[in-house]
Amino acid sequence: MADVHDTPFSSDGDGFHDECGVFGIFGRHDAAAIVTLGLHALQHRGQEAAGIVSFDGSQFHVERHVGLIGDTFTKQAVIDSLKGSRAIGHTRYATTGGAGVRNIQPFFAELADGGFAVAHNGNLTNAMTLQRTLQKQGAIFSSTSDTETILHLVAMSKERDLNARFIDAVRQIEGAFSLVALSSKKMIGCRDPLGIRPLVLGDLDGAWILASETCALDIIGARFVRDLKPGEMVVITSKGIESLFPFEPQKSRFCIFEYVYFSRPDSSVEGRNVYDVRKRIGMELAKESPVDADIIVPVPDSGTPAAIGFSQEAKLPFELGIIRNHYVGRTFIQPGDSIRHMGVKLKHNANRSMIEGKRVVLVDDSIVRGTTSQKIVQMVRDAGAREVHMRIASPPTRASCFYGVDTPETSKLLASRMSVKEMADFIRVDSLGFLSIDGLYRAVGEAARDNETPQFCDACFTTQYPTRLTDHEGADNVRQLSVLATRA
Amino acid sequence: MADVHDTPFSSDGDGFHDECGVFGIFGRHDAAAIVTLGLHALQHRGQEAAGIVSFDGSQFHVERHVGLIGDTFTKQAVIDSLKGSRAIGHTRYATTGGAGVRNIQPFFAELADGGFAVAHNGNLTNAMTLQRTLQKQGAIFSSTSDTETILHLVAMSKERDLNARFIDAVRQIEGAFSLVALSSKKMIGCRDPLGIRPLVLGDLDGAWILASETCALDIIGARFVRDLKPGEMVVITSKGIESLFPFEPQKSRFCIFEYVYFSRPDSSVEGRNVYDVRKRIGMELAKESPVDADIIVPVPDSGTPAAIGFSQEAKLPFELGIIRNHYVGRTFIQPGDSIRHMGVKLKHNANRSMIEGKRVVLVDDSIVRGTTSQKIVQMVRDAGAREVHMRIASPPTRASCFYGVDTPETSKLLASRMSVKEMADFIRVDSLGFLSIDGLYRAVGEAARDNETPQFCDACFTTQYPTRLTDHEGADNVRQLSVLATRA
Amino acid sequence: MADVHDTPFSSDGDGFHDECGVFGIFGRHDAAAIVTLGLHALQHRGQEAAGIVSFDGSQFHVERHVGLIGDTFTKQAVIDSLKGSRAIGHTRYATTGGAGVRNIQPFFAELADGGFAVAHNGNLTNAMTLQRTLQKQGAIFSSTSDTETILHLVAMSKERDLNARFIDAVRQIEGAFSLVALSSKKMIGCRDPLGIRPLVLGDLDGAWILASETCALDIIGARFVRDLKPGEMVVITSKGIESLFPFEPQKSRFCIFEYVYFSRPDSSVEGRNVYDVRKRIGMELAKESPVDADIIVPVPDSGTPAAIGFSQEAKLPFELGIIRNHYVGRTFIQPGDSIRHMGVKLKHNANRSMIEGKRVVLVDDSIVRGTTSQKIVQMVRDAGAREVHMRIASPPTRASCFYGVDTPETSKLLASRMSVKEMADFIRVDSLGFLSIDGLYRAVGEAARDNETPQFCDACFTTQYPTRLTDHEGADNVRQLSVLATRA
Amino acid sequence: MADVHDTPFSSDGDGFHDECGVFGIFGRHDAAAIVTLGLHALQHRGQEAAGIVSFDGSQFHVERHVGLIGDTFTKQAVIDSLKGSRAIGHTRYATTGGAGVRNIQPFFAELADGGFAVAHNGNLTNAMTLQRTLQKQGAIFSSTSDTETILHLVAMSKERDLNARFIDAVRQIEGAFSLVALSSKKMIGCRDPLGIRPLVLGDLDGAWILASETCALDIIGARFVRDLKPGEMVVITSKGIESLFPFEPQKSRFCIFEYVYFSRPDSSVEGRNVYDVRKRIGMELAKESPVDADIIVPVPDSGTPAAIGFSQEAKLPFELGIIRNHYVGRTFIQPGDSIRHMGVKLKHNANRSMIEGKRVVLVDDSIVRGTTSQKIVQMVRDAGAREVHMRIASPPTRASCFYGVDTPETSKLLASRMSVKEMADFIRVDSLGFLSIDGLYRAVGEAARDNETPQFCDACFTTQYPTRLTDHEGADNVRQLSVLATRA
Repeated sequence: MADVHDTPFSSDGDGFHDECGVFGIFGRHDAAAIVTLGLHALQHRGQEAAGIVSFDGSQFHVERHVGLIGDTFTKQAVIDSLKGSRAIGHTRYATTGGAGVRNIQPFFAELADGGFAVAHNGNLTNAMTLQRTLQKQGAIFSSTSDTETILHLVAMSKERDLNARFIDAVRQIEGAFSLVALSSKKMIGCRDPLGIRPLVLGDLDGAWILASETCALDIIGARFVRDLKPGEMVVITSKGIESLFPFEPQKSRFCIFEYVYFSRPDSSVEGRNVYDVRKRIGMELAKESPVDADIIVPVPDSGTPAAIGFSQEAKLPFELGIIRNHYVGRTFIQPGDSIRHMGVKLKHNANRSMIEGKRVVLVDDSIVRGTTSQKIVQMVRDAGAREVHMRIASPPTRASCFYGVDTPETSKLLASRMSVKEMADFIRVDSLGFLSIDGLYRAVGEAARDNETPQFCDACFTTQYPTRLTDHEGADNVRQLSVLATRA
Repeated sequence: MADVHDTPFSSDGDGFHDECGVFGIFGRHDAAAIVTLGLHALQHRGQEAAGIVSFDGSQFHVERHVGLIGDTFTKQAVIDSLKGSRAIGHTRYATTGGAGVRNIQPFFAELADGGFAVAHNGNLTNAMTLQRTLQKQGAIFSSTSDTETILHLVAMSKERDLNARFIDAVRQIEGAFSLVALSSKKMIGCRDPLGIRPLVLGDLDGAWILASETCALDIIGARFVRDLKPGEMVVITSKGIESLFPFEPQKSRFCIFEYVYFSRPDSSVEGRNVYDVRKRIGMELAKESPVDADIIVPVPDSGTPAAIGFSQEAKLPFELGIIRNHYVGRTFIQPGDSIRHMGVKLKHNANRSMIEGKRVVLVDDSIVRGTTSQKIVQMVRDAGAREVHMRIASPPTRASCFYGVDTPETSKLLASRMSVKEMADFIRVDSLGFLSIDGLYRAVGEAARDNETPQFCDACFTTQYPTRLTDHEGADNVRQLSVLATRA
Repeated sequence: MADVHDTPFSSDGDGFHDECGVFGIFGRHDAAAIVTLGLHALQHRGQEAAGIVSFDGSQFHVERHVGLIGDTFTKQAVIDSLKGSRAIGHTRYATTGGAGVRNIQPFFAELADGGFAVAHNGNLTNAMTLQRTLQKQGAIFSSTSDTETILHLVAMSKERDLNARFIDAVRQIEGAFSLVALSSKKMIGCRDPLGIRPLVLGDLDGAWILASETCALDIIGARFVRDLKPGEMVVITSKGIESLFPFEPQKSRFCIFEYVYFSRPDSSVEGRNVYDVRKRIGMELAKESPVDADIIVPVPDSGTPAAIGFSQEAKLPFELGIIRNHYVGRTFIQPGDSIRHMGVKLKHNANRSMIEGKRVVLVDDSIVRGTTSQKIVQMVRDAGAREVHMRIASPPTRASCFYGVDTPETSKLLASRMSVKEMADFIRVDSLGFLSIDGLYRAVGEAARDNETPQFCDACFTTQYPTRLTDHEGADNVRQLSVLATRA
Repeated sequence: MADVHDTPFSSDGDGFHDECGVFGIFGRHDAAAIVTLGLHALQHRGQEAAGIVSFDGSQFHVERHVGLIGDTFTKQAVIDSLKGSRAIGHTRYATTGGAGVRNIQPFFAELADGGFAVAHNGNLTNAMTLQRTLQKQGAIFSSTSDTETILHLVAMSKERDLNARFIDAVRQIEGAFSLVALSSKKMIGCRDPLGIRPLVLGDLDGAWILASETCALDIIGARFVRDLKPGEMVVITSKGIESLFPFEPQKSRFCIFEYVYFSRPDSSVEGRNVYDVRKRIGMELAKESPVDADIIVPVPDSGTPAAIGFSQEAKLPFELGIIRNHYVGRTFIQPGDSIRHMGVKLKHNANRSMIEGKRVVLVDDSIVRGTTSQKIVQMVRDAGAREVHMRIASPPTRASCFYGVDTPETSKLLASRMSVKEMADFIRVDSLGFLSIDGLYRAVGEAARDNETPQFCDACFTTQYPTRLTDHEGADNVRQLSVLATRA
């Protein structure tokens, strides 16, 4: 697919959307400013809204805003109001337009023993089931976010100590979660037992940092300490850091799609540099699906690293045959019906003089619905390409994600209802090649996929979900919340 | 005091502030539009923010906005989003600047058996005590408003039926409350056992209405049916209206200050026209504190009806000796120190040619801190008044209100620390007269105050609070919430 | 008519609109802050937009904003940017919604010999004729305001000295104008030869002030020096003030409607206190059109002083039988058709208990189209009045104003097409009485109107315009500007 | 330099800024929507503000907004207000923050014979001189833009016919100009005699288009017809297109920096594809300044095409060693002093695993002040590069541009005061190489630079300005405009 980091802005919603980035710092006088910078570096994980909660030793301060970090949290008044040396933040992609301020994280509540805030990257697969149980016990939900469920579980826990209450809560939830939480005494980080979503530990001149990716450490010159382990919970207080393992140990199932698309190329996740993995994906792809062509052209920007790898392996020139307009904002509305049917090229334009008369290999990261690929192929053909071949830097995407990536439902995914040959016809290419699942595993450094207990979560390619899907499987999952939209 | 309906805009915060107006309608296709109009008529009861919750038969819709109704709820998109034939609304005065959207009512929650919204006029005197108990049971508070406490009590109730749960809740709360609530099946209205705050029932072509004052019925041409009785709970469904009395019967203690200042002069509250009571207050005042003078001048706008009554009784001409600038908005900042010390007359100006050389009687509704009175007297003297006499249309205000009126703490009230003679010196008048407490009771139609069981709540004048002040009396009342401010 | 100071906000546009207030100060370090306060006091003369130009000794600074002074010019950044000890300002009522920022005054231009700003209260009757001539000479107009014409005339003048250029310009313009202008050396004030619009001179601790009304001096405690004379031009420099009379002397023709409606009651204009004149208007009206009734009720707020005068003369009680909602802002849109036909009482409500069963005399300042009067009468009847009599504090309004008051065209004025009897039927009153033209002259202190050379401009009542109406009479006046609307 | 398309957002203002893009269409029902899309494609030429003027057969409509096209002109109300089948637009980079709405183009004026709008890409070198002359003739300037001067010249022309007036005007101006103008009858395009700035002619289903670059034709699928010739003026009416040559013929001097940096890589300007030229620049650079290294790393995004060319020529791998954060908006303020000194990497991050231990060649398009290069080199060193070599895809920038590119004054340009060796020390690289001027000419397809009459304007590299610099050379050029800033 074409770079989907901003697909919400495209007209057809053809793409994946990241769900969240989290960041926290403990013990630095300008904590909120640091969180702002960290979230800016994680902006690719969610562009719709962001929030920061700080604690100044006696009071908590909360700011939540719709929009990019750089537009909302850089105002002096906002930063000034977030007093204190401890702060956590969250940036999110909103799945529904009307979601409103109420769903912006971190969530904060005044519990019996003080304030408590939590920010969440991932998705719970039993949130609705838990929510219904909690409501029957009298819990009031002020949002439609699964993160609020965690807060209620902590609040309702019969344990007395916060650590115990937190453990009580996370043991009840299922799915993917990398959590950062803040109380008046401590900052807590926690990854689900399978470690589906990333979470790293950093250090800035003695202040502990928790962040979704290492690029959020780089922006402020912080030191990368290590990845949190799957199922690990770290508790940071003014006395230091403590590591707990509240879950039954399980084999890691990190999301392999973080390498394919989500994470920033300059991040290192789970010990591997993302750009490097993507280049190797391109190399594997060139080996598996070679093609006799003149130029290798990335669909920018997400296809670029794989295209470079493909070009190096295939010894064919890498060329910018498609130019991307970076000024596409989120509100570009195509005015009028006549315009809407013109096939306007808001985001990409073929670089005609580079394309004309050439046999072109397009390299993209994935195909979702196929409509974007169709348009891009047509644009390249209109620019005079002699042949158009498409190479995809991942296996066919066959199944929805339930772990925090906003995917279309399975039936909307092109690969769920077509063979590769049919897909090639649909997007009108001379040839179409996907990376094999084993090729993908090789690119990340494995010999092959362990089909018994796979080393990664690759459910979107294989439909093998690593956890129960309690809400999805239950009959209740159709129940809608009765509040449609809250404006605030 | 000078008209305090907009005292938040003055520089010294010298005045009382209304807390709330509530309005609901059940069974009219354009319910939210009607609520908007009703809240506009109740705008004098709270100018800071407003909210409306509607129900369209399957979904609830919520809108909350900071600002005047006429600036925020008249936008087509806002009204359009509030679908449905049932809606309740609330307009509020925010006690703290940073209160934010989270504290705007109505409060809404998704309970186990469906959505539930509640709007509240008044103040609970045991809210913090209840809140602490609820938090210990695991309840999460998303606001600092006592109204959310009511929602939690309903949610936590062990009763199965909503009526029973609601009764369970209101039986636990203490203080002043006129509530309007909305579920997917019914609209509920309820007054506290003493009936401290007003609530009226109206009818618009067959649709039932609940409103704080009759002026909110007049604006839409609705019929006034009757005041709700103290301790009464009405339940309105598509089948009709039902009246319940869930509390131990008590003698009514309606807030007498609603007559003096809060309610709109064109409203009828508890069977009496407010303008008429205020005129009779002025007449009683003229009898009790006559003065040999040339003209009777109201401090506009709140002193005007009493000044007319005084003028008619004293047979002295009523004149607009002070002109009010109605364009004083909420954000008028006096720029620069030099300006701040100029004694700028943003809101009132003496009408010099009417004042010069005259013996002037100023009529105002009350004196709070005395600073506003001081300035107005000085302005009238500067305009050449020969004598300045002040007559106050209520007894000296000696005690804070705990029932929904934002008053300074008792020690800041001028009358709590000065005799009438000292107050006269402080505000520099030739004479100062307050209405007696019995005079006030006579003006509202009583022979005299029944000192055993007073007919009204007059605690601000007498310090005799009609309910327990659980939070205030408990040692816990000093505990502050740990979240200072949430921007949304 | 009902108080038209905010008639733009009413649904039917039934009313007059003020056009402008002007204010300037020369020689005070916080000049712009003072102008802000002065314009706030003049807000009743124009609520749509305002502008301030200051000069700091080397640079001019310009701020123009749509909205109330108190909402726009009180921001610290705005005031801070308006550096300098000399400043002029303007507040305006925009005649067309789409007028945009370009039409906000003061107008500023970089002339060959330095910056020059001008603010204008009034209306030129030959602006379009001059504009066409100027365009033929190559002048470019960036607005649709007649004030820009004055700037072009100054710019195009062949004179060398600014005073001479200014005189050259004002001698070419016709109509009503009270001007305040600012150059790098001087502040100029000028009234048209007939003195149709007001302009006063004040003094604040040695700094000269020019303002439309004395209430703008009062707000800052400035001293009233005198009215500028008709045809007078004052030139204020750091050396002092100079008075010039550049026009052929003519008999004064001050706008009598300033007394009836425009000016603030606490202002003194042309030596007469406005409130006092209005009361005497009410007294004359009571003498000319007595009525056997129970109560005298003003249509608030503009009818109030005349109602007091009527009440005192007629010895009938003055009562607030109609209550005004001061929270009617400029954007109150009545949502939905069903609502629009309900006759919603956004601004006024009858005070039923005061009205019921009574013979009521309503006192209003004028009748424009009659639709507002019709609604108010109906509202009073619905509240149970036994009889409703209307008394109008001016003669019938028969003709449009060309001197800076936004009136409907003559054919839309009720009095231009109906007799008093027909008007009474139209608004459905038991009796209707207007003040006679001589009664009005008596109220302002004249023995009678001098029909040869009237002492005032009373064209709206008599159709006797005191100047040529060049644009209106020329065939060219139909030509429209080709730019419809500019958003900025 | 690092990609300066958004340098205004960086803290040190180190970079060039484009000044303008222009676009017009004549004869298409949804003209304004097409202009919006065209300006979106030209957004890289100016991101601060944009304007569109349309003509609907009887009225002109004007919209001007600060911000990106996609944020401001895509609102339905804006597009709807721009009625008509003819429209021109402009997107600009504002040279000063306070420039305000008044300086947003197109400029529009009501001339004696109708409305006239003009949009301008370039810069006049005698604008102030002309302005002073025009002011002496009485012209009023409402902006500080040189484009308004053109409008005045047309207005003041003694010619009768618009074509003749326009020719009269453009013959008086000096410097660089590509103009698009609209009257009620015609659309005019015009390039200065040297053709310094680009302007192309296109066709969309019979509607003529004028645009700065071909990428603005591509976005809507319009056909590229041809470049306008230097000194050519085209007049488009409903009858067709006419070509005029009002100037003395001169040899073309197109801006060579359009190839180096300004134009979009997918545009073809003056017959050459920009991406192709940039790649060949990289190849020439590799030949002229070879280096023994491991990887070729572009400073993204502007250095990318040259880096690809360098990599292909040098047969060294092209790698994304620096990752750019595309979410850097214009308002990112670094909060607090401590943060400001941290060297925060808001826009670029080194891709450590690709850099570490390598000998790196950085390829950038130019060096302006050198501060950005310094930071990037340091960042790459901190990431562990063994050697850092910098190769610049243009000759040293030694002189300011007077033709529409916002450059620092000459003395601020690093190359104006340092040798290449000194610059290498300053930015701390192991070696530094610039492309030679002849290498640049070879890359655009010339054998060498013709030093007598150069084929391009290359003044920024050679100080040989192709036109007079009347304002700059005159003594008057120090005169400042007296209005500092206008907010609107």
